[in-house]
Formats: sequence, C-alpha cells, structure tokens
Amino acid sequence: MTTYPATLQEELLKFLRNDQVSANDTVLANHSKDESYHEWSTPDLVVFPEKAEEVSQIMKAAETSGVPVIPFGLGSSLEGNVIAYDKGITIDFSSMNRVTEVRDKDFLVKVQPGVTRSQLNKELKKYGLFFSVDPGADATLGGMAATNASGTTSVKYGVMKDQIQSLEVVTPGGDIIHTGSLARKSSSGYDLTSLYVGSEGTLGCITELTLRVYGIPEHVMAARASFPTIDYAVGAVISMLQAGVPVARVELLDEASIRQVNRFNDTDYIEKATLFLEFHGNEAGLQEDVAFMEEIVSSHKCEAIDFEKDNAARVKLWEARHNLAYAYIHDSPGKKMMVTDVCLPISELGGAIRHGREKMTELGLDGGILGHVGDGNYHALLMIDMEKEEERRKAEMFNEEIVEYALARGGTCTGEHGVGKGKMKYQEREHGKALPVMQAIKEALDPKGIMNPGKLIHNGRGNGQ
Amino acid sequence: MTTYPATLQEELLKFLRNDQVSANDTVLANHSKDESYHEWSTPDLVVFPEKAEEVSQIMKAAETSGVPVIPFGLGSSLEGNVIAYDKGITIDFSSMNRVTEVRDKDFLVKVQPGVTRSQLNKELKKYGLFFSVDPGADATLGGMAATNASGTTSVKYGVMKDQIQSLEVVTPGGDIIHTGSLARKSSSGYDLTSLYVGSEGTLGCITELTLRVYGIPEHVMAARASFPTIDYAVGAVISMLQAGVPVARVELLDEASIRQVNRFNDTDYIEKATLFLEFHGNEAGLQEDVAFMEEIVSSHKCEAIDFEKDNAARVKLWEARHNLAYAYIHDSPGKKMMVTDVCLPISELGGAIRHGREKMTELGLDGGILGHVGDGNYHALLMIDMEKEEERRKAEMFNEEIVEYALARGGTCTGEHGVGKGKMKYQEREHGKALPVMQAIKEALDPKGIMNPGKLIHNGRGNGQ
Repeated sequence: MTTYPATLQEELLKFLRNDQVSANDTVLANHSKDESYHEWSTPDLVVFPEKAEEVSQIMKAAETSGVPVIPFGLGSSLEGNVIAYDKGITIDFSSMNRVTEVRDKDFLVKVQPGVTRSQLNKELKKYGLFFSVDPGADATLGGMAATNASGTTSVKYGVMKDQIQSLEVVTPGGDIIHTGSLARKSSSGYDLTSLYVGSEGTLGCITELTLRVYGIPEHVMAARASFPTIDYAVGAVISMLQAGVPVARVELLDEASIRQVNRFNDTDYIEKATLFLEFHGNEAGLQEDVAFMEEIVSSHKCEAIDFEKDNAARVKLWEARHNLAYAYIHDSPGKKMMVTDVCLPISELGGAIRHGREKMTELGLDGGILGHVGDGNYHALLMIDMEKEEERRKAEMFNEEIVEYALARGGTCTGEHGVGKGKMKYQEREHGKALPVMQAIKEALDPKGIMNPGKLIHNGRGNGQ
Repeated sequence: MTTYPATLQEELLKFLRNDQVSANDTVLANHSKDESYHEWSTPDLVVFPEKAEEVSQIMKAAETSGVPVIPFGLGSSLEGNVIAYDKGITIDFSSMNRVTEVRDKDFLVKVQPGVTRSQLNKELKKYGLFFSVDPGADATLGGMAATNASGTTSVKYGVMKDQIQSLEVVTPGGDIIHTGSLARKSSSGYDLTSLYVGSEGTLGCITELTLRVYGIPEHVMAARASFPTIDYAVGAVISMLQAGVPVARVELLDEASIRQVNRFNDTDYIEKATLFLEFHGNEAGLQEDVAFMEEIVSSHKCEAIDFEKDNAARVKLWEARHNLAYAYIHDSPGKKMMVTDVCLPISELGGAIRHGREKMTELGLDGGILGHVGDGNYHALLMIDMEKEEERRKAEMFNEEIVEYALARGGTCTGEHGVGKGKMKYQEREHGKALPVMQAIKEALDPKGIMNPGKLIHNGRGNGQ
C-alpha cells in the first residue's frame, strides 16, 4: 500500500505528465531555499504546470488531501517566502513563461507568472515600451507580484501594486478567477487585485498578470553624486523630493558599498557616500530638472557629480548597483546574506539610517548600507556565518532594533521583500487590531489553510515561528 | 413598552448627546437621497458622532440589535450608495470635519472623513501643497474614499486609491483598526487600505484618512481645443497618451455640453466638441509638452486652440466644467439626472463613445456626453422625467447597452461612481467567479450583514435589486 506523498503523486499524474511531477532529490533541494539566510526545507513534490487549468487541478487535489501548496518563481525571495517548512507541493511556474499579449495602444501586457523582468523588457523593447519595476534580481513577475516588489524606479513609477491592472488567480478550491478589468480605473466591487498582490501565495496562485507598461522615455540622464557623509547624501534626497524634482531613480550607497562595487566591477567610482541618480523626460524639461538637482546637491556639500553621458556608462552604473548583493556574497564564501528592509516616512529616513549605522558599529557587525532613499526605504547587507551563534544573534538583534525604530515612527517592517517567515514576528506589533481582520480574510479565502502555511500570517497551521 | 427604533435611540443616548441623535422628519428626509435618480428611502435615525470611539459604540449597539448602518458624507453619490433602503442608522460624518495633521515634509495629511475636498485644499495652500483628486462635486473625503472617486486629474495623479496612505476604520464589531503605515511603500501583510477604499461602507466605517498630497506645480497651462467632431477629439487624446505627453487634465465635452456651459456661465466657448486640457511642470518642460500637444491636435483636425493665460481664466474654465451637471439640473426642473459611468481600455474609447451617441439618437434621448477621456472614462448626462415610465425605461436601456458594450471589451460598469444600488445588477456579469470571493470577504468582515445592506454586494440581506 502506497502512502502520502506517493498517493498524491499518483493523483497528480492523472492529469500531469511524468516530467511535470518530480520527487527527485536535486529538484527538491533546488526548491528548498531562497536567497536568504533562512533555514532550508524541502517540499515533498515539485510540479511544473503549463496552464491555469492544471494549476486548478493541482489545487483541488491538494485541498482534498489537505496538503500545503507553495507557488515558486525563481527563489530570489529574501525572507524565506517560498521555503516549504510544512512540506507539501511546490508549484514551479517556470513552464508558464510566455508573454501572451502586448496591447501596446493600451500600455498593457499580459504575461504568465514565470516570465522574468528582463525577458519582458526584451520583448517590450520592440514596441518602444518598458516595464518599470526593477528590484535588482531578475525575478519572475509572479514572484514580484506575490511580494509587492519594488526597487530603484518606484520613486517615479510606483511599486509592483501600481503596475498590476488585473490578475488571473486560482483559488485554493480550484476556481479560476479574474480580478479587475482592462479599464484604467474602476469603482466596481472590492479590489481583489490589491489583496492578492503582496499576499505571498497565502490566498491563491497567480496564473496570469496584466501589467501596465510605459513608453521608453525620450531622454534619460544618469549621474553619480558623492558626499562627505551619508547624512549629507540623505539630506540632499529629502530636499530634492520636497522641491518636487521628478527624479526617476535615486539610490544611496555608503562608502563600504561603493568599495565593494569597485572591487567587483570595472569601475573607479569615488569611495564615499554616493547617490546614483536618473532622470527621464523630454530634453528641455530634463535639463531644467538636472540643473535644479545640481543646485540642491551642492547646497548639501556634494563633492563631485559625474554624469554618465552614454547608454553604455549608464547600463554599467545600474549593473554595478544591482550586482552589489552578489558582490558581497562572492566575497564571503560560506556565509549567508541577511538584508534588512525597513521603510519610513521620508522625514524620518535620515535619523533611521544614522541609528542603523550606530547599531551596526555598536554590535560590531560588518556590512553595507544602501537604499531606495526616494521611498524612505533602506537596506543593510550583512554577511552572516550561520555556524557562529553569536554572529547570528547579533544580526537578529540588529534587525529587531531597526524594525522597532521604524515602527515607532510610522514605518513598516518590510518595504519590499515581504513578510515570508522572517517578518512574521513583527506583524502583530505593526498591524495591531488590523491583524485579526487579515486573519479573517485568510480563513475565508483559504479555509483549509493549505496556501503557503507559516508565511505572512498565522492561521492555526504552519510552523512559522 | 417602547419598541425599535425607540429602544435603539435610548441605547445610543447612553453615550451620545441629544443633539447627536435625530429622528426629526426633515433630518431623515435630508438623509434619504443622493444626487441620483434612484428612489428615496429614509433611515430610522441619523447620528452625528464626533470621534472614532463614538462610532465604535454606535457600531456595537447596531450589531447587537442587527440594525443596518449607513456611513454618510454629503450625499453627492450618484448610484444610491447612501440611501437607506433597509432603514437603520445613518452615520452623518459632518461633525468629524477637521484636518488633524499636516506632515508637509512627508507630503501627507490626516483628515477626518467629513472634511471636504475644497476645505482640505484651502488648508493645504498655506503649505504650498494640494490634494489632487477632483471629482467635480465638493464631496467629503470619506465619501470619495468609499467610492474610490476620481475625476479630472487622475490621468496624471491617479484615483482616490492612489492617494490613500492609510485609514482608520471602525469594524462592524466596533474595533478601531489602522491600515497601512506612513511609509511610502510596504510589503507587510494584506493590503486592507485598498480593500476598504471603494467598499462603499459595506465593510466598516472610515473614521480617519491619511492622504498623499503634492507640491503645487511650478507652472500650469490650460487650453481649450475645438474639433469638428467628437471622434477627432477622442483620436487626439489617444495620440497624446500614446506619445507620452504628460497631460494633467484632459476633459472631453460634446457640442451639447459646451452649449450648456455657455448658457450657465459667463463664457463664449466655440460650440463644438472640445477638449479642456491642463499641463503641470517646470517652465521649459511644459513649453515642450504644449508644443507637442499642439502638433498632435492639429493632425487631428483641431480647428482652434485657446490658451487660458491667467489664473482667473483657468479657474473659470474648470468651474464651468464642474458646474455642467448642475447646469443640466437647473435647466430641467422636475427631472432627475442619470449619469452613466463606463470606463474602457483607451483603445476602445472612440468606438464606445460613437456607440453611445448612436444609441442615444436611436432611443430619442437628450443629453450631453463628456468624459475623463485620458482614463477611458465617459459619462452621458441624461435628464429623466421619472413620472414617465417610457423615458425611464429608455434611459435604463441605454445604460444597459453601454455597460454591455464596455464589459464585452474588457471595461468596467463604473469608472468612478461606485456600484451602490444602481450597478448591483452588473456585478455578476463583470466579476464572474470573482464575485463569490468578494462575498466570502463580506461575510467574514461583516458576518451580521449590517453594513450598508443592499449596496455593492448581495449577502443574503438587503433589498437591493
């Protein structure tokens, strides 16, 4: 007599091919982790559906058996969001990776959840369009929707939530539903789109996304501005935002991060606290914006501004920025990366970063500080030797300190990485009496608690701490 | 022995003053209607709370007795959204009308739900800031949030949902919860803010809003562009959007509407299909944008462009636009206004307006067509003699025809007015299998079904059709 998971595998093979269902050790191991420091845990099975109808059948089989289901993009999450702590079925969306429709006249595109950001932009370029959200990692769009990702361009274009026009979602019961419409705005019914975005697969599986896209800007200008201290750099950003300078990207890198950039790229950027800036617009407007920016950074003791004049230099600048996390990882063999992710009202950002630096020094932690400072969001990149209990404890303590600081000032424990397993413990502190409302929604939409248990929200199941 | 509603009134008077609870006929009549053609119905009681704690106590009393609760702003809704079809308690928020905090450095402001849009802008002007959403009516911000209102500026700044940073909400059980945070972005927990926005008081009462505001633009330029037909005007808008011209407002008025504008205002605008346009930005960028716009409208047979050079002319332009609905009402004593409100993907807008005009002619209906065409949203303003069964039937038929047309093309039955009672009948057609998901949420968050029954969503209670 076969037992679970073999019986379930048998059930799945009634509608999936052999090569769509795997219990192979390597495949399981590849789906046991993300890019974070969180403990690994393998699922029982990994499935590779090719269409929504198959996802629906998988969900029905899982719900009948009460087996956990975890939607999985590329595993680039940073809070254990896709780790199978309760075993079950991991749904890998890599076989659902087609751009299904480009409605260029409506600035809309339909994609399957396994399409990556760079794949989409390659396709859109043919139409003179681009997709704005740029979290660094070449994540899947399904995963980016699930965590409400953002990144370097959200100061101008907004976060993932702002780009999602509608979703196809498979409910835990196996229904295939469509949220929203293709109209630019609507006041019809409850906003299910925004509810599923950022729900980290705890309410259902996203099987198609309709995304808003933009015309490639007429003119783009990028610059690096170096400052004597991180404080001056943050001050300059706040002044720019308050003056209404329409910056498209504004990224802060501290001295340590710039050093790391130079080490792992063919660059010789000045090793001081630096802002990477980008402006999009028409030529005349852009010149006026940049002149205004120069005036503001000068008044904040900016020591040097270097403009990246051609496209190649601009690409190099952003690649260097994006590769920073990987540069740290390469430089620290055997260690794991903890990336903190608080976000605060912009007026509180200077104090928050100052506080973060002090705590890092106090705890003797080594790492870089960088951030999407235009959004009030900053990260500390810490490389942790997970074998050293003391190092691990200190990193955790640091994370808690800066989360407490942010929450006490109207901020959030996660600006863009999501709750996953890592930020569960802060949910009650952050949401208070709103948490039971979230729990009521979870119970109403996933009554058996099969969707990604132990992540984002407690629901009487799951071994998330 | 006293009976309901007298017993409930007694209960309410335990924590409210006499002048906060009214069963006066005039007061009840004033709360029995909105600005739409929908049938009137008086509540049993009207209460005037002054703080969230009082709203909480009202909700507890209502839930215990199973009595309907209807949140009420100013009654400017257009789909019967605040009409007491099931009697019960109407909560009038006019005594909660303070701007409680201006965080100018964070571009955030906290307001109570009874604050009106013009009241807020008057206050913000002192800080060089403005609130962008402009639906025409001087509605309350609580009401605008409840219906996810938008209006003339959403093509640039977005709709109500895009401006709401966080909410204080009183649940049907009387809990006072806070959604979101003050950070510009967050990936923490489910997005309750977006769920309550547009929920039309069917899930809880909004008692405070934290709104995003903007710096008053450096330069503003407004213009009127006249076209030989409505088709050319719509074509020009589509070309402008597709060329990425960053227009801040673009409103279409047909010939009939311009005639009405001239009749009721001190204006002599050319009586042809016209676009009212506005641009915001820095001086150099704006000149380039406007030049580009002129080129585009010319290629769409624009016959005349008039720039409103000074502030007074600009104010007059937008006042004339906003007063259009009232102009129609004044001109049709004894009639009631039906405003249709479909929204489509922009590529479908031209065909939709053409279809709408044809149906109006076919049915012999008289009225104006106007729209927030940058969003794909258009309205037909029809003045209906409600006593004439035939006229009423034709107007209903027209509404159904254009809704069907929009839904068949990926549009929505309501772009900005909300579902209320009037659009209930289209919800299943529009949302399909997503509707039971909405119902599950309604049942989870309002298990006794006391919140604004018969509006937006069926839940086994309420006499909405």
